Amino acid sequence: MQAIVKESPAPGLTVATIPVPSVGPGEVLIAVRHAGVCGTDLHIADWDPWAQGRIRPPLVVGHEFAGEIVALGEGITELKQGQLVTAEGHIVCGHCLQCRTGNGHICKNTRIIGVDRDGAFAEFITMPATNVLTLDGIPTEVGAIMDPMGNAFHTVLTAEIPGSTVFVVGCGPIGCFAVGIARAAGAAQVIASDVNPKRLALAARMGAQVTIDASKHQVVQTVLDATGGEGADVVCEMSGVPQALHQAFAAVRMGGRVQLLGIPKGEVPVDFATEIIFKGITVYGVIGRKMYETWNQMRRFLTGGMFDPSPVITHTFPLAKIDDALAAIRSGDAGKVILEIA
Amino acid sequence: MQAIVKESPAPGLTVATIPVPSVGPGEVLIAVRHAGVCGTDLHIADWDPWAQGRIRPPLVVGHEFAGEIVALGEGITELKQGQLVTAEGHIVCGHCLQCRTGNGHICKNTRIIGVDRDGAFAEFITMPATNVLTLDGIPTEVGAIMDPMGNAFHTVLTAEIPGSTVFVVGCGPIGCFAVGIARAAGAAQVIASDVNPKRLALAARMGAQVTIDASKHQVVQTVLDATGGEGADVVCEMSGVPQALHQAFAAVRMGGRVQLLGIPKGEVPVDFATEIIFKGITVYGVIGRKMYETWNQMRRFLTGGMFDPSPVITHTFPLAKIDDALAAIRSGDAGKVILEIA
Amino acid sequence: MQAIVKESPAPGLTVATIPVPSVGPGEVLIAVRHAGVCGTDLHIADWDPWAQGRIRPPLVVGHEFAGEIVALGEGITELKQGQLVTAEGHIVCGHCLQCRTGNGHICKNTRIIGVDRDGAFAEFITMPATNVLTLDGIPTEVGAIMDPMGNAFHTVLTAEIPGSTVFVVGCGPIGCFAVGIARAAGAAQVIASDVNPKRLALAARMGAQVTIDASKHQVVQTVLDATGGEGADVVCEMSGVPQALHQAFAAVRMGGRVQLLGIPKGEVPVDFATEIIFKGITVYGVIGRKMYETWNQMRRFLTGGMFDPSPVITHTFPLAKIDDALAAIRSGDAGKVILEIA
Amino acid sequence: MQAIVKESPAPGLTVATIPVPSVGPGEVLIAVRHAGVCGTDLHIADWDPWAQGRIRPPLVVGHEFAGEIVALGEGITELKQGQLVTAEGHIVCGHCLQCRTGNGHICKNTRIIGVDRDGAFAEFITMPATNVLTLDGIPTEVGAIMDPMGNAFHTVLTAEIPGSTVFVVGCGPIGCFAVGIARAAGAAQVIASDVNPKRLALAARMGAQVTIDASKHQVVQTVLDATGGEGADVVCEMSGVPQALHQAFAAVRMGGRVQLLGIPKGEVPVDFATEIIFKGITVYGVIGRKMYETWNQMRRFLTGGMFDPSPVITHTFPLAKIDDALAAIRSGDAGKVILEIA
Repeated sequence: MQAIVKESPAPGLTVATIPVPSVGPGEVLIAVRHAGVCGTDLHIADWDPWAQGRIRPPLVVGHEFAGEIVALGEGITELKQGQLVTAEGHIVCGHCLQCRTGNGHICKNTRIIGVDRDGAFAEFITMPATNVLTLDGIPTEVGAIMDPMGNAFHTVLTAEIPGSTVFVVGCGPIGCFAVGIARAAGAAQVIASDVNPKRLALAARMGAQVTIDASKHQVVQTVLDATGGEGADVVCEMSGVPQALHQAFAAVRMGGRVQLLGIPKGEVPVDFATEIIFKGITVYGVIGRKMYETWNQMRRFLTGGMFDPSPVITHTFPLAKIDDALAAIRSGDAGKVILEIA
Repeated sequence: MQAIVKESPAPGLTVATIPVPSVGPGEVLIAVRHAGVCGTDLHIADWDPWAQGRIRPPLVVGHEFAGEIVALGEGITELKQGQLVTAEGHIVCGHCLQCRTGNGHICKNTRIIGVDRDGAFAEFITMPATNVLTLDGIPTEVGAIMDPMGNAFHTVLTAEIPGSTVFVVGCGPIGCFAVGIARAAGAAQVIASDVNPKRLALAARMGAQVTIDASKHQVVQTVLDATGGEGADVVCEMSGVPQALHQAFAAVRMGGRVQLLGIPKGEVPVDFATEIIFKGITVYGVIGRKMYETWNQMRRFLTGGMFDPSPVITHTFPLAKIDDALAAIRSGDAGKVILEIA
Repeated sequence: MQAIVKESPAPGLTVATIPVPSVGPGEVLIAVRHAGVCGTDLHIADWDPWAQGRIRPPLVVGHEFAGEIVALGEGITELKQGQLVTAEGHIVCGHCLQCRTGNGHICKNTRIIGVDRDGAFAEFITMPATNVLTLDGIPTEVGAIMDPMGNAFHTVLTAEIPGSTVFVVGCGPIGCFAVGIARAAGAAQVIASDVNPKRLALAARMGAQVTIDASKHQVVQTVLDATGGEGADVVCEMSGVPQALHQAFAAVRMGGRVQLLGIPKGEVPVDFATEIIFKGITVYGVIGRKMYETWNQMRRFLTGGMFDPSPVITHTFPLAKIDDALAAIRSGDAGKVILEIA
Repeated sequence: MQAIVKESPAPGLTVATIPVPSVGPGEVLIAVRHAGVCGTDLHIADWDPWAQGRIRPPLVVGHEFAGEIVALGEGITELKQGQLVTAEGHIVCGHCLQCRTGNGHICKNTRIIGVDRDGAFAEFITMPATNVLTLDGIPTEVGAIMDPMGNAFHTVLTAEIPGSTVFVVGCGPIGCFAVGIARAAGAAQVIASDVNPKRLALAARMGAQVTIDASKHQVVQTVLDATGGEGADVVCEMSGVPQALHQAFAAVRMGGRVQLLGIPKGEVPVDFATEIIFKGITVYGVIGRKMYETWNQMRRFLTGGMFDPSPVITHTFPLAKIDDALAAIRSGDAGKVILEIA
């Protein structure tokens, strides 16, 4: 089969022909139809320090995908051939306390497809059946991006949204998803900030009532003005930019909640007294997707027609054009970039 | 001033002329513009056993209203003359543990306007400033029904709504409000049942995707069919009808939540084993409105344009036509009936 | 091996010799050391209407036990031979939404050992590895009763206990466990009621500061007096007696929480208005043990020395003396009755 | 009356004779019996940059106290002369959204006694009746330190404690209170760290099962070893020391909770990715005491005999010996230092 492979510990990705994986007990074989390209794939392609420390080539990359079940391993009764599915890319141990209490997203033994084992930029992938979610009518283009969309659902829905004011900091694809999810979940007002006008326009299209160009306007003051001087009830930090992180803490109201998803590079100096403690706020670190509460919620929003993520998909490439896909992400203007595989 | 008065311990209400109340320290005087008529007012008019046990005539009735502040008592700094306002009709002690922990809605020393002290079917009413809420642009027609609408907000928003399936049992005004609130708060699906086609039509207009005529169809089976056999995540019981109460327990999913607002007359036999315990459900008794969390949420939904209760207002009468207003309620076909006072 | 078997659809249990079960993939074989006898076993022995509807003989009965792992099925890596273990007796499907979100205790496909498949009153039993919990130093006598003790932990720890007043209604073994757990979890005051002085004495020994003989004293008034007139913050109903159920609702404070574990026979008439709705309370139906949050909490309490259930174990019999064990339960004076098997 | 006064914008405190304050409507006059001395008083005495920016002399200092009600202002019905009481020192506006929803501890209009208005190091103080809490048998020595003890209760009881492992970082008086509260609230294990052996001994006396001298031992590794490699479920950071803050994040388990009470001076560099986000933790900034939920819980723990804070009180001085009291705090070896006034 055709696949995108990290062949050696050096920059670059290769379009290679490799054997179709065999399907073991408790697994299914999935013919991939669409796959999402993520910043993580860029790090692996560029062979940055994180990739050098974590990736062991050769490796099929890619961790966001949807496709069709084409073979079932021994013991699978809850799934069947021909079903269109996506999958949680975090493969957890199932035995630790976290896994046994519905908190697999914080399993310490997590292995990620496309990072720690072969991934989804390929014509076929095997997955443990426990990780597979049926699409129930959701198109595979959308199914292919339910992994990052799930990060946005996890971020938004672990706060109390109905009637709240929500400030989304950073309007990359996950930020734009968050805007739409917050609106669909009953936020009274959604405010979004970014430095890129194209991304702000996309956030507005997803439902942000107020957008702030952080390169031109006072972010915190604008949020305060829009919220009667109180600040936002919930802030979703999706940028990882140090300055934006401080804006998140400054713009949240007393006793509010800051959800952290964006990953800053290196350390960020924090004034705990004024930014967190004296404000009486709660800060939550978002990792992965709740397994499988987030997936269930996401499927409900999508099949219920409450939330349409498709405007965020701005680019589609065939599998072999992975370099063009990565270039689109590097440009900074793209929403979500996906590969069409079959 | 003109007022609707329960003059003696016997059926009937009187349109009377009485003195404008004087305003004490910590109080405001409000010129009433609109007032909502409630089933409670019907009980008082009819002098039913509950009324006989609770009401001490003479009494100005009515507990749902909105109007304009026309005078301020001593010590009021947070409100001003000319503001359009509504008010929480439960006057609580402020000293008990519940009051001191933000749970005034369950204060044991609660006194209700129009029930335990003079009420709102009058040209003027005095209220403690703590109970007064500014309308911030909400019309007084809508402000006049924020008390029962607040019951619906309390019922819906104390459950986890985003992405949930919600079954509203009983489509009187509060049930119809609940339908719209659940949709606005991100319910994935709202199902509503009643025996009255007009009320079901109103529920559909408020956003119910599935309506069930309980006089003709199998209620529980319809809910199960609409929810993939699971049952509803959240059931809001707004009818107080014993049969409907059993439907609520039968239609909620394992581990789901039943919110009880409708008041059954007398005792209802319950099979605790199969209806509650073996289902692992949570049952919540809804009384009043959270003071003042519910009011704040409600104002956010209304001023944010997320929820429009106006289709539920089906009848408007002048103050003196209170008997016509009561008759409209008795007919069983009315949504919310209001009085226009000034 | 020797086992207690329900051989035919008629009253009685038999001490029989049957083959040791074989161990399949994902299972372990456990040599049972101690087993707990439960009211459910009594229903099966007596062949009451519930048993007639549910049990399909022949069946090895018993669902509470602890023992030693003596063989591992294929694919088991997280357990090993020689470990002392107990097990959750509810075998759930693992595929439904509830199972996939950490809520296996409300899986609709639950099968119970000793009820729906062969159980634990035997020298050996096979269990799915997922259901097995290591004892980590807890004696097998105590391990054998972690199933009902887990009901008590589930009941108590799903309420907010630190600083609360807790009223335990019914001082059978699970009620007595609940008393001790509530004290260990920081209840400010624990009150317990029963009609049996021996059980009340056991409740006192487990830590109840106030005990009420319901056959002699006004239960509700005593609770009100002990709580400054407020009522208890949390009521744990462990009796299933209709009169006690009403006492539970009457004795809980406004806005409090009633945890229902005791199973009433048949229907109980409830005045929803005064018992639930106007009190603004929350009622929770307790089924099984949270899988596996409750088990983890229970292990922490036991290994941390915070809670000693051993006073509740009042009788121990050899396996063959099952009839004596059942007689001890029937007497109404027993605490927990266990079988010593190896 | 005699009082400790900050007379001018310069270092030092003065023992002065000033008029007894007059009692206004809604206020009570309290004869102070005991008062607690706090690090804040030290800052004011030393006239450090914080004090220079906030304090407007002349001012009676002191914000922790208990005493006897000796006069009632107009309109007070819920309190009476002769009652022994303490008081919440944060005087809030009562009108903002936070105040109206039971969250007065994050009122933006808070004024603190002994900081923003005259305080408690005096023979008499007036307080709004809403801030006054009756002692119900708690000695005034203990009542005098319920303000800082309330910080510890707020810190501990906003986490889920029963069955949890709790790591208290920093064993000053509030840390030592936290140790005892966590044990009383059902923590399975309490670990405490400090650099001062006297404080660690006090923590052990308050119930810490593991104490770590951070000047000699590997703090994080010791916590991991004591928790089976998982880390603590709940970490209470009471030191404000940057290094200890990093230990708090490193020692909490995946998905755990870090409660921040200690105030670092200046900024602390944080690696959000590894310290917060990838761990999926929740961080909560603790300010003041929940008004008045924390006070109610605290009174329950104290009157229920669940928690004895008296070992933490290491020094008592007469009012005039304020300089000796401050010196005891400066030494770093003191637990809680109190003034005996009447």
